[in-house]
Amino acid sequence: MRLSRYFMPILKENPKEAEIVSHRLMLRTGMIKQQSQGIYSWLPLGKRVLDKVNAIIREEQNRSGAIELSMPTLQSAELWQESGRYDAYGKEMLRIKDRQERPMLYGPTNEEMVTDIFRSYVKSYKNLPLNLYHIQLKFRDEIRPRFGTMRSREFMMKDAYSFDLNKEDAVHSYNKMFAAYLRTFDRLGLRAIPMRADTGPIGGNHSHEFIILAETGESEVFSHRDFVNFDIPAADVDFDDVAGMQAIFDKWTSVYAATSEMHDEAAFDAIPESDRLSARGIEVGHIFYFGTKYSEPMGAKVQGPDGKEHLVHMGSYGIGPTRLVPAIIEASHDENGIIWPASVAPFDVVVINMKPGDEACDRISEGLYGDLGKAGKDVLYDDTDDRAGTKFATADLIGVPVQVIVGPRSAANGEVEVKDRKTGAREVMTVEAAMNRITG
Amino acid sequence: MRLSRYFMPILKENPKEAEIVSHRLMLRTGMIKQQSQGIYSWLPLGKRVLDKVNAIIREEQNRSGAIELSMPTLQSAELWQESGRYDAYGKEMLRIKDRQERPMLYGPTNEEMVTDIFRSYVKSYKNLPLNLYHIQLKFRDEIRPRFGTMRSREFMMKDAYSFDLNKEDAVHSYNKMFAAYLRTFDRLGLRAIPMRADTGPIGGNHSHEFIILAETGESEVFSHRDFVNFDIPAADVDFDDVAGMQAIFDKWTSVYAATSEMHDEAAFDAIPESDRLSARGIEVGHIFYFGTKYSEPMGAKVQGPDGKEHLVHMGSYGIGPTRLVPAIIEASHDENGIIWPASVAPFDVVVINMKPGDEACDRISEGLYGDLGKAGKDVLYDDTDDRAGTKFATADLIGVPVQVIVGPRSAANGEVEVKDRKTGAREVMTVEAAMNRITG
Repeated sequence: MRLSRYFMPILKENPKEAEIVSHRLMLRTGMIKQQSQGIYSWLPLGKRVLDKVNAIIREEQNRSGAIELSMPTLQSAELWQESGRYDAYGKEMLRIKDRQERPMLYGPTNEEMVTDIFRSYVKSYKNLPLNLYHIQLKFRDEIRPRFGTMRSREFMMKDAYSFDLNKEDAVHSYNKMFAAYLRTFDRLGLRAIPMRADTGPIGGNHSHEFIILAETGESEVFSHRDFVNFDIPAADVDFDDVAGMQAIFDKWTSVYAATSEMHDEAAFDAIPESDRLSARGIEVGHIFYFGTKYSEPMGAKVQGPDGKEHLVHMGSYGIGPTRLVPAIIEASHDENGIIWPASVAPFDVVVINMKPGDEACDRISEGLYGDLGKAGKDVLYDDTDDRAGTKFATADLIGVPVQVIVGPRSAANGEVEVKDRKTGAREVMTVEAAMNRITG
Repeated sequence: MRLSRYFMPILKENPKEAEIVSHRLMLRTGMIKQQSQGIYSWLPLGKRVLDKVNAIIREEQNRSGAIELSMPTLQSAELWQESGRYDAYGKEMLRIKDRQERPMLYGPTNEEMVTDIFRSYVKSYKNLPLNLYHIQLKFRDEIRPRFGTMRSREFMMKDAYSFDLNKEDAVHSYNKMFAAYLRTFDRLGLRAIPMRADTGPIGGNHSHEFIILAETGESEVFSHRDFVNFDIPAADVDFDDVAGMQAIFDKWTSVYAATSEMHDEAAFDAIPESDRLSARGIEVGHIFYFGTKYSEPMGAKVQGPDGKEHLVHMGSYGIGPTRLVPAIIEASHDENGIIWPASVAPFDVVVINMKPGDEACDRISEGLYGDLGKAGKDVLYDDTDDRAGTKFATADLIGVPVQVIVGPRSAANGEVEVKDRKTGAREVMTVEAAMNRITG
């Protein structure tokens, strides 16, 4: 992408309305724009990051055997009356009447609708287990939306729903998602700690939040330091291995971890002081097992191997991509801007032409832009007439992992400077060496 | 994907509510499920097709220089009051009040919001031309939604918006989208004919609809037969070539084409009878140039090279992916089911194991499933215990382009049967030959 033709509106000033660093940086880099209170556009730079986050979530959901569909944003009130949540859900639910005066709502979550899909088609235990997910917009009419897309009203959620014949199988489904979440957050460059959680309005009796550690996190968390070193399940882990999945779950829940709501001071104090980790955290995922809470009122049953009808046991599993993006920034930035993990960076590399119009600078920059693109890299090419200082500041601000600086003096020698955004290390090398470094 | 683990609820009976073939086939194959009137879930098979359609749309938008972002579904009423459309837009607009009693709406289109984005950031002609697009859900509260996702209330739209300094540049932007649309529909396996169109509620003075021919189309169209043979712009066409783009536009608008609303009988009769094409069509895209219709009331101006402020000239460009999927089916099916163009088929190939449990059948089927997947193909593997007749009927119904039938007799000789869904041609060959045929 040539910067001269791109739409990346960098703000010169720090926006005053932003209270936390991720919100400030997302506004400054032109990743998002507020359209109404708690409702945002994702501008091109932000959209690229969001897409990469979603791609990783999707890959890991698919790997674990979950199947993607897409449910609509608007739901009929009837479904929620069936489950009993239409009245129970408070003012956070955006209630709407269509032109026929039929009561509808903008889905805050999809337990009812997915249960309706299930009961419409699935009649036998032979079609189980089943885990259906979508990545879709949701709306929750928060009284106080804040922190940009960290707590917005219209937001994106990956929500998966598992269906099993009995509790034992449902626990395996839960453990599979548990492992998939560990892999997902790890690939996003985050260390997430699963913590036993309250079940809230979803209901149920078995639930974990995934919390990432970040200085600016909104909740206080307490855990054993061992978490930092636990192994992440490998890409080829066998999700069908019931004992193996249980072992991963057992390992990751073997030591103390709790948010302040669930904190047990005595248990925490029993940990040797040097192993205690007390920090700030951001919730980035939440998983629930809730048995027959929805299948019972909504009549979602299958015929079991015994020939009898059984209510299915369900779980639901949420990750918020539009919250993950700022969470990643909270966990990875410095005074100059964002430091993207390579897996979700909007571009893999930025080629900075220091003197457009200079023959050597243009030739080398254009060549790198073309060749890196052909090698499968997402390349931003700064071909603008901005001053050097502006170009460097922008490249640092937007946090692309690798910068290739093409200045007239080194270009005359066929050389460029490669800068690592994270460490700040710079190295002059030939164009060929730069290509090898970046694509190798 | 192993069919035994997939969620593809095939209906045995033809659904009674479906009036047209695409709606019937999308319900029968379990591609969609109606959730409320005119509101659908896209089940896994349908979601796969929709994703492939969107991927092609996106590639061609990007190729033409348009830049992707994502605007939210909910908009504040204020923006629409600025443009004057809040009152003008009728009951099709879904009006909502949030918990603070603020008037909002579910966006039926995004001219206002994108103009707001533009005016917030772009101040100089140097940042033009600019074309911003998103692929996002829209809602139009049709009084009579029908034909499944062909005319639904919650639907997906790719909508692009161009911004230029003056009319001349805006016409070039229009021509670029015109060419991009020709490429897009061609890659989707469709022959689309651009026709001069009414501008309707979007407004403006220069507009074309893209109509595909299908026996079951809802509107009558009249055109010169030459369209069928016009060349599609090549992948490496230069979108910056103003004259080249104009030549493409001129060529494709050089002969008669009109929907019944715009039909000029005298002009049509002037065409030699053997060249007249009178057929049914489905609108799958619509492009507009509308000058300063929105920039004027909303104050979207840039400084020109003359140092003065100029209202930007705009256009908008829509394609409906959730309508394109049924349109493709209308244009490509037979009595046994859907015949997907390869570019949007939910799977590239289905491997049908005729006798799971048979050593040779299992070995060959599993081998092909694995190897074809490694070769980058999307493979559906029918590993179920269904009867042969059911398996064949399902494979034909869902319209996967290539079927590989692995039966015990030929498997014992290391052979399989490869069937082309479209022609029905079947050929027995070695496993290796089948691999080469499919991946070659």
